[in-house]
Amino acid sequence: MPLVVQKFGGSSVADATSLKRVAKRIVETQEAGNDVVVVVSAMGDTTDELLDLAASVTDSPSERELDILLTAGERISMSLLAMAISELGVEARSYTGQQAGVLTDAAHGKASIVGVVPERIARTIEEGGVAIVAGFQGVSETMDVTTLGRGGSDTTAVALAAALGADVCEIYTDVDGLFTADPRIVPTARQITDITSEETLEMAAHGAKILHLRAVEYARRYGVPIHVRSSFSNKIGTWIRTDDSSEESSMEEPIIAGVAHDRSQGKITVMGVPDVPGAAARLFAVVAEAGANVDMIVQNVSSAATGLTDISFTLPEADGPSTLAALRAAAGDLGYSDLRYDDQIGKLSLVGAGMRSHPGVSARLFGALSDAGINIEMISTSEIRISVVTRAESLDGAVRAVHTAFDLDSSESEAVVYGGTGR
Amino acid sequence: MPLVVQKFGGSSVADATSLKRVAKRIVETQEAGNDVVVVVSAMGDTTDELLDLAASVTDSPSERELDILLTAGERISMSLLAMAISELGVEARSYTGQQAGVLTDAAHGKASIVGVVPERIARTIEEGGVAIVAGFQGVSETMDVTTLGRGGSDTTAVALAAALGADVCEIYTDVDGLFTADPRIVPTARQITDITSEETLEMAAHGAKILHLRAVEYARRYGVPIHVRSSFSNKIGTWIRTDDSSEESSMEEPIIAGVAHDRSQGKITVMGVPDVPGAAARLFAVVAEAGANVDMIVQNVSSAATGLTDISFTLPEADGPSTLAALRAAAGDLGYSDLRYDDQIGKLSLVGAGMRSHPGVSARLFGALSDAGINIEMISTSEIRISVVTRAESLDGAVRAVHTAFDLDSSESEAVVYGGTGR
Repeated sequence: MPLVVQKFGGSSVADATSLKRVAKRIVETQEAGNDVVVVVSAMGDTTDELLDLAASVTDSPSERELDILLTAGERISMSLLAMAISELGVEARSYTGQQAGVLTDAAHGKASIVGVVPERIARTIEEGGVAIVAGFQGVSETMDVTTLGRGGSDTTAVALAAALGADVCEIYTDVDGLFTADPRIVPTARQITDITSEETLEMAAHGAKILHLRAVEYARRYGVPIHVRSSFSNKIGTWIRTDDSSEESSMEEPIIAGVAHDRSQGKITVMGVPDVPGAAARLFAVVAEAGANVDMIVQNVSSAATGLTDISFTLPEADGPSTLAALRAAAGDLGYSDLRYDDQIGKLSLVGAGMRSHPGVSARLFGALSDAGINIEMISTSEIRISVVTRAESLDGAVRAVHTAFDLDSSESEAVVYGGTGR
Repeated sequence: MPLVVQKFGGSSVADATSLKRVAKRIVETQEAGNDVVVVVSAMGDTTDELLDLAASVTDSPSERELDILLTAGERISMSLLAMAISELGVEARSYTGQQAGVLTDAAHGKASIVGVVPERIARTIEEGGVAIVAGFQGVSETMDVTTLGRGGSDTTAVALAAALGADVCEIYTDVDGLFTADPRIVPTARQITDITSEETLEMAAHGAKILHLRAVEYARRYGVPIHVRSSFSNKIGTWIRTDDSSEESSMEEPIIAGVAHDRSQGKITVMGVPDVPGAAARLFAVVAEAGANVDMIVQNVSSAATGLTDISFTLPEADGPSTLAALRAAAGDLGYSDLRYDDQIGKLSLVGAGMRSHPGVSARLFGALSDAGINIEMISTSEIRISVVTRAESLDGAVRAVHTAFDLDSSESEAVVYGGTGR
């Protein structure tokens, strides 16, 4: 019998009505001839309410205690969901991360799964029941409760699917799947029916608020097919394939998967750096020490007259102030002449596994931006991605121009709201 | 170092302010030179809110799932309390029933503790920390979460105190301790400073809303001294001694511990029962089959003329309808002539270990009621208790009259509200 792992986020189980709707869908999936394992997040705003409670008691909660507190959220949603399913006449049992055998390291608040031993889950489905598993949580070697951090429930679902050898991991969300661009910016964006995990990773890493990176990485590593779909309809959503070899052979494959954008980066330019061996290394050692997560780096050709160069790099805006402070503190050592910070930038990323075998993609991209009168400030590329930095106010126009240039526009506007998948 | 187990009920940790007050008290106890283990219930109305959530999804929740749901309550209170203590600079770690080694049978919703293996708790206090343990919950042999039912947190505290060899188990409540009668009825009721576990059991079993029976029984069996006291003051409360031998030797011991009352009973009278061997046995077999918890039984002297007798017994009002139905269904077999039900009764119980060595207590009791013009409908006694049934509307007056007759009145009224200790 096929085995389906279904993951429902907090907005899908926000209240009794939605819990019952989700229960009905689960029962229908089982009645269609599948074994079903469900991963569920905390209801609606529960996590935020628990964080507020913690804040009312202390400014600096212990991470161990915070994990115990937050995992109360899934206990509530998972037991209520099991009750709602039983109410429909199907046996359902809920399990904590620990009971489901989700073993993690001890990094409270951002634990990594080190193994999954889902014995009780396997037994429950063998006996014909539905197993409900708390997302987002696991247990460490010391038998302490841990949480997996942002995107944790998606990762729980994929990890369970891998351990159980599931046929598919269905991630339910409030939109129909992944889109070629954010429909709020590009009304003609199309739903993607089929995408590789590699492309999904590049999209997610460069601003597309779709699945969490960790879950996709896990799926890729263990070969778990993911189906991202709407919890409000039975339409087919987006399949994320992990068998990347097939894409090479298919002539029908579109070249481009989609256009991602990211408005959350800032740019630091270090001016007048001596263009001598080791200067860049010293500079980025200081940046790394400050904990900044550097994305793109551009170094200008140095001036022959002065022997000085400028180095620009992008980083999350949140890392801006601390990185600037670290660079200022090291000014004497680094010997630069000036430091500039710009948070008014936008980044556009064109992603497509087909780029490998299709030359001319970058020329078409730059041509489209040029035709739209948009200036490119930085460029970086990977095998299946080209990213450019523009002025923040030009970003939306850039995304639309590129989307059109690569024939991604659908004939009609999709009336959807683009959103994340919850925690 | 002395080891103190402290139990705080839901009303003591209803919000951030009370959590912080409780945290301060715990830290003060540790600073006074004690090791401290804390047992905590769910905050305020959390349990009722969770029950409401379950009711919004199903009318007949699975008991296993209900236990998972309800135990979310202590996860929240225990982690917040640990945070509040850490905020005061003292290391605190919270543990679920399972982590604390509270092993139970599998009777979800009303599980019994079968063993306590508090290794992690012992290690935490050895390391100088405060251990916070979730009350009311444990883990079954199948590693499923269980709850202990009403009074569960008190039982958790006493069981942990026994397993850890604690010097005292402090039960915090919103009153100063146990009283010689309910101060709402007897304004001159006195706080009891010292009482035996045997007397406490009799008081609790006969209507005094003090500690739960199970907790006192557990304390008695394992010799755990209990100190019931207010979470709002540092006053000495009521000590419940388990060393019953000492009371015999003390000449200073008061004869009477207190006057309990119970308004929650009903009375069934079965009239015209054939007075032949086995008739009562058959009658009470039917009653037991109906699940009724019979308290007092009185059989009249049978009429020589008819060879018939009347049998009256009391039982919790909640058991009344089902028991009457069972008796009606068995009417042919039992051969009685009529069935009467009376829920307008009250029960007064005078409790005191000193009764054993002091004759004349019952005469004084009956005299006091007679002087007050109160009619006695039924009488039952144990070694250390005399209970009488009166009309419900006479009960308050009866309690006051008896309280006065046994010199229990204090010189001044205690300005307190008498209440329970939460779950």
